[in-house]
Amino acid sequence: MSEPTAQAVPERDAFLRVAGKAKEAAAVLAPLSRATKDAALHTIADALVARADEIVKANEGDVARAREAGTSEYMIDRLSLSVPRIEAIAAAVRQVAALPDPVGETVRGNVLPNGLELRQVRVPLGVVGIIYEGRPNVTVDAAALCLKSGNVAMLRGSSSAFDSNTALVGVMQDALRGTRVPADAIQLVPGTSRESVKHLMRARGLVDVLIPRGGAALINSVVEESTVPVIETGVGNCAVYVDAAADVDLAVDILVNSKTQRPSVCNAAETVLVHADIADVFVPRALEALRAKGVTVHGDDRVRSYGEDVVAATEDDWYAEYLSLDIAARVVDSLDDAVAHIRTYGSGHTEAIVTTSQPAAKRFVALVDSAAVMVNASTRFTDGEEFGFGAEIGISTQKLHARGPMGLPELTSTKYVVVGEGQLKGV
Amino acid sequence: MSEPTAQAVPERDAFLRVAGKAKEAAAVLAPLSRATKDAALHTIADALVARADEIVKANEGDVARAREAGTSEYMIDRLSLSVPRIEAIAAAVRQVAALPDPVGETVRGNVLPNGLELRQVRVPLGVVGIIYEGRPNVTVDAAALCLKSGNVAMLRGSSSAFDSNTALVGVMQDALRGTRVPADAIQLVPGTSRESVKHLMRARGLVDVLIPRGGAALINSVVEESTVPVIETGVGNCAVYVDAAADVDLAVDILVNSKTQRPSVCNAAETVLVHADIADVFVPRALEALRAKGVTVHGDDRVRSYGEDVVAATEDDWYAEYLSLDIAARVVDSLDDAVAHIRTYGSGHTEAIVTTSQPAAKRFVALVDSAAVMVNASTRFTDGEEFGFGAEIGISTQKLHARGPMGLPELTSTKYVVVGEGQLKGV
Repeated sequence: MSEPTAQAVPERDAFLRVAGKAKEAAAVLAPLSRATKDAALHTIADALVARADEIVKANEGDVARAREAGTSEYMIDRLSLSVPRIEAIAAAVRQVAALPDPVGETVRGNVLPNGLELRQVRVPLGVVGIIYEGRPNVTVDAAALCLKSGNVAMLRGSSSAFDSNTALVGVMQDALRGTRVPADAIQLVPGTSRESVKHLMRARGLVDVLIPRGGAALINSVVEESTVPVIETGVGNCAVYVDAAADVDLAVDILVNSKTQRPSVCNAAETVLVHADIADVFVPRALEALRAKGVTVHGDDRVRSYGEDVVAATEDDWYAEYLSLDIAARVVDSLDDAVAHIRTYGSGHTEAIVTTSQPAAKRFVALVDSAAVMVNASTRFTDGEEFGFGAEIGISTQKLHARGPMGLPELTSTKYVVVGEGQLKGV
Repeated sequence: MSEPTAQAVPERDAFLRVAGKAKEAAAVLAPLSRATKDAALHTIADALVARADEIVKANEGDVARAREAGTSEYMIDRLSLSVPRIEAIAAAVRQVAALPDPVGETVRGNVLPNGLELRQVRVPLGVVGIIYEGRPNVTVDAAALCLKSGNVAMLRGSSSAFDSNTALVGVMQDALRGTRVPADAIQLVPGTSRESVKHLMRARGLVDVLIPRGGAALINSVVEESTVPVIETGVGNCAVYVDAAADVDLAVDILVNSKTQRPSVCNAAETVLVHADIADVFVPRALEALRAKGVTVHGDDRVRSYGEDVVAATEDDWYAEYLSLDIAARVVDSLDDAVAHIRTYGSGHTEAIVTTSQPAAKRFVALVDSAAVMVNASTRFTDGEEFGFGAEIGISTQKLHARGPMGLPELTSTKYVVVGEGQLKGV
């Protein structure tokens, strides 16, 4: 770490003040009952609706600045808030209130031979830092999920949404002042500089976990620099493998759905791998269907032999998370070659096999080392809502703590409670 | 990170070769059946016993060098191997073989409304790096636990035990050559320099998790420098709180057992906090009992008023993990003051309350944020063996992934397996 500049020192002091208040609030929040937390969430939802005009006004400033800076209309749309959008955000908060509280759940428990009663129970993580780009609705979603799971949220959104986020956090904190949940349970990281992210990443002892939500560059920089434990989320280079024994109609449908149903999200397919034995039948059908949806195919030589409009794939294409109407395509000689491709180039998010062969499905599931493995289903189903978790804070692509869609239980730790009557060791 | 020196480059190349082989072995090892892994563990145990003389010979070199370097007899004893000790190590390997295999366990599963069959199943983490000091038996214990849970072990022991560890890993790898488990599934990090630890800490993408086992300095340096996710283990500044409503006999017994039954381990008590209302009765009794065991008490002024031999405690004493016959002692005015002391100075390992009051026990359990909280029991029970896990790889003092004693399930991740019949999203 380089030494901070003179100007950065007040920002660091402001950060440490906020983080200190967050840590104190965490101790108060952790033991609160579900009823208290749910009541606070409803108060927040009410306040967001009641003060929607004020939030929209703050948002208009961010939008105007983004327009001046030449931001694309797509990004402007993601940034923009309106009264109906704020009502939808408030409705999502009420949905979080309706979910079961993970805190206090006994994960396992038994009586030990010496009579000690052992229970492993879920407890909040403490202070959860969330670094995100884009839409200001994440500010409220993340705060609500943290509060419900007994955690203090330290939010660091995009600097382009700073005024919107300040307004949203202000409204939420004001709402909490009328409840038994401390207002400091929801915090915005002060400042908009790149240094302000670094303070969060170096706040070991004050912040218990960091969840970066965004592109690969953001996530890599957090993993490299953070001394706070990190849960990586959201980078998805997902592959659909069409096995020799695939039902071709099903395979075309699953591929098209995985690629085009919503191309900008992390569970969209970015690669298709086709077994050589079915390539003659499948590839022309697939190219036609993808063409009809406006998809550009980046293929190896074998795929290119089936279509003149297939662009030559480079090594970069196998690694690419396009998030657009592009797909990389390769013919492979075996299921194991498909697995090897995924191991080399994949991001460990979601891979799908299309096959009627039970042994092929079993082998693919066993060998593919990703957060989710689909058999005869679209990659688009890897999602907390779809999996029945009610809501998600992100999709983890790492193996530690949480893997795949993260719901409320993934925002908790556990502790062991051991009740005795004077048991001594070795006596 | 500073640039590596010219001499360090070959060591780094050697590390990357070994790590590459480890990653390949992980893919082969992960899907192997329990029977295959257990057979390999028994083969390893047989080989350790059969080649014990060879291992002892290598160990004698390490011991001789440690003696020359003026190492204490206590440390020499920890370093030393003998045929009976190797037989005990082999017996521990057979015990690991007898434990259930966590891999493949379905953690949860259900059928989603759209007919998708969702299962979350345990899978190996992949490549597990273990950095440890001291005793060479950890080399075999850690390798066996990793193998059983389908993980490749990348071992980096103390440089003072390098020849012993090289011999142990050599015997284990040779044994695996006669089995279906790849010999590369157990690896020793090449070299004994401090740089060789850094290679392990920077091997993101090759190593899936790092578990440092040792003192606070080792663990802090790993947390600071590692880009590989880390599980912190083993630092224990454990407190016994004697409540106003304590049974005094029970409290004295629990305190003495927690402090003196084995002072050098992480679950030994390092602090005692006494409610003011019981101090007149408890403190003199406690001082007498501790004195009889040769314990030096570092007390605040209120504790010192009960005994002339109580040393004045400094701020450092409240933080201290003595691992010796020393204890810090303080009189507090309330249970909440005890909790505040623990929050400020504790390491989050294990705290105990001694009380006959149910509300006091409930409040202490709710407010203390440690991996284990004991009610009327010795802190010494926080242990994988005692908790019935069969074996442990360490005791986690962090909140992410695993907290408290880590058994075989804590050496796994999960993946979601989703089986459909052509389900598409949004259709």
